[in-house]
Amino acid sequence: MRFGSLQFVKGHGTENDFVLLPEPPDDLSEALVRRLCDRRAGIGGDGVLAVRRSADGAASRDADTYFMDYRNADGSIAEICGNGIRVFARYLVEAGRQAAGCFEVDTRAGRCRVEVPADGGDITVEMGVPERLTDAKVTVGTATWPGYGYAIGNPHLVVLDAGDIDALDLSSAPTVEPPFPTGVNVELLQPVGPRQLRMRVYERGVGETRSCGSGACMAAVAAMDAAGERSTYVVDVAGGRLTVTWRDDDVVTLTGPAILVAFGEVDPSTWNG
Amino acid sequence: MRFGSLQFVKGHGTENDFVLLPEPPDDLSEALVRRLCDRRAGIGGDGVLAVRRSADGAASRDADTYFMDYRNADGSIAEICGNGIRVFARYLVEAGRQAAGCFEVDTRAGRCRVEVPADGGDITVEMGVPERLTDAKVTVGTATWPGYGYAIGNPHLVVLDAGDIDALDLSSAPTVEPPFPTGVNVELLQPVGPRQLRMRVYERGVGETRSCGSGACMAAVAAMDAAGERSTYVVDVAGGRLTVTWRDDDVVTLTGPAILVAFGEVDPSTWNG
Repeated sequence: MRFGSLQFVKGHGTENDFVLLPEPPDDLSEALVRRLCDRRAGIGGDGVLAVRRSADGAASRDADTYFMDYRNADGSIAEICGNGIRVFARYLVEAGRQAAGCFEVDTRAGRCRVEVPADGGDITVEMGVPERLTDAKVTVGTATWPGYGYAIGNPHLVVLDAGDIDALDLSSAPTVEPPFPTGVNVELLQPVGPRQLRMRVYERGVGETRSCGSGACMAAVAAMDAAGERSTYVVDVAGGRLTVTWRDDDVVTLTGPAILVAFGEVDPSTWNG
Repeated sequence: MRFGSLQFVKGHGTENDFVLLPEPPDDLSEALVRRLCDRRAGIGGDGVLAVRRSADGAASRDADTYFMDYRNADGSIAEICGNGIRVFARYLVEAGRQAAGCFEVDTRAGRCRVEVPADGGDITVEMGVPERLTDAKVTVGTATWPGYGYAIGNPHLVVLDAGDIDALDLSSAPTVEPPFPTGVNVELLQPVGPRQLRMRVYERGVGETRSCGSGACMAAVAAMDAAGERSTYVVDVAGGRLTVTWRDDDVVTLTGPAILVAFGEVDPSTWNG
């Protein structure tokens, strides 16, 4: 079998999936990222997580910390991904490159603290301090609701109660009025119990997805703001269950699963396409 | 890393992609097939190709021949797949389990002769003798054309010239009148040169796909019937180029690429989902 030039791990967090490269090439090209993420002609994923020592990356000069070099499936560079960093942290522990417990991961958005339990359970990531954005109206089909604007790196509009969210048609983008100049992610919530939300999410430039880590965080923060509390909320998305805590120091944490599905080798030079 | 219980190869033929299991479990369950083919929580593929000695399978008792135990992504059992058998044959040669050249593969639809060149080039599969079915009208949007009915295992309706096929909206199924009781695959052709066709395909129960091996065969056969010849036609699909020959002995052969993308290991017991 002619494989072996490039190792990979495939993993996912609430079905946001990634091709992780334990020993990435120094010159990880856009073309290679696109090919690895191609769901039919490659391995398939929402993005690539390249494992680098911080000294290799621009974000940090601390050689004891790993740098998550994250790329979107289209090859573009991204700052951070709330589901991806859990997969990244799980890999570091499973591969013996970090001890279980609390450690830090460098990203293009700065240093993130993660907590990886030794038993393989849910992983917690400090996502940072949310910002409040302007509000806007969100329309899906014939229904219009107020959307509350929040950002944690990227912008979100949260609809606190969109009724029976299973009935919504998200095959095209919700209408946002006034529009956001660079687009906005839209979270549609259905409260289902005390501090428990169901969520569907439409990501700008992508469409409806099965999970969005930052979207779950902003959804829970908007709901906590409306309830006048800082607490811990459960957010159920299509791909699984996330838990969001808004701490007294203003930092939001995201807790959720991270599953390593497969380990293997590819030789992109033989793909001839 | 806790992997290793189940080896896999991911491969594709004109972007019809498969999870191949070199040493499949005897009791390959529907649930495991679905999980392996899940594009986010598993590896991802249109189906599973389990490599068995013929003596293990129901189709043959010849222990010198391999049996392609093919499953659809939903876990159901399928007879044969024109793109999958090329990937299966490529694997057998690359893994040293068959010598390059001509050999036979057993399937639930019977024994198929394949030809795998030693240089990694396109693989040819004998697909069998086509049957003529009844014709029907095919409507996409506001356009209606005659559809010519053919079968090679499964039923197809071929539209010989659907104009600029890139302009067609195949987000929903073409209307077929009179309808086929068990559904039908629809091939929409655009002749682009002597013995050269472009094709889009809507597969029953699936939707538009990037390639359909039997559909390409029936498309070329319908075009040859209309031209009053038996010849070799090129059929370009979204996922690549296929070549179809209708021989004087009535047998149709399909020639096309088969790419092995990745090799790896999974441990489904750790997927906990």
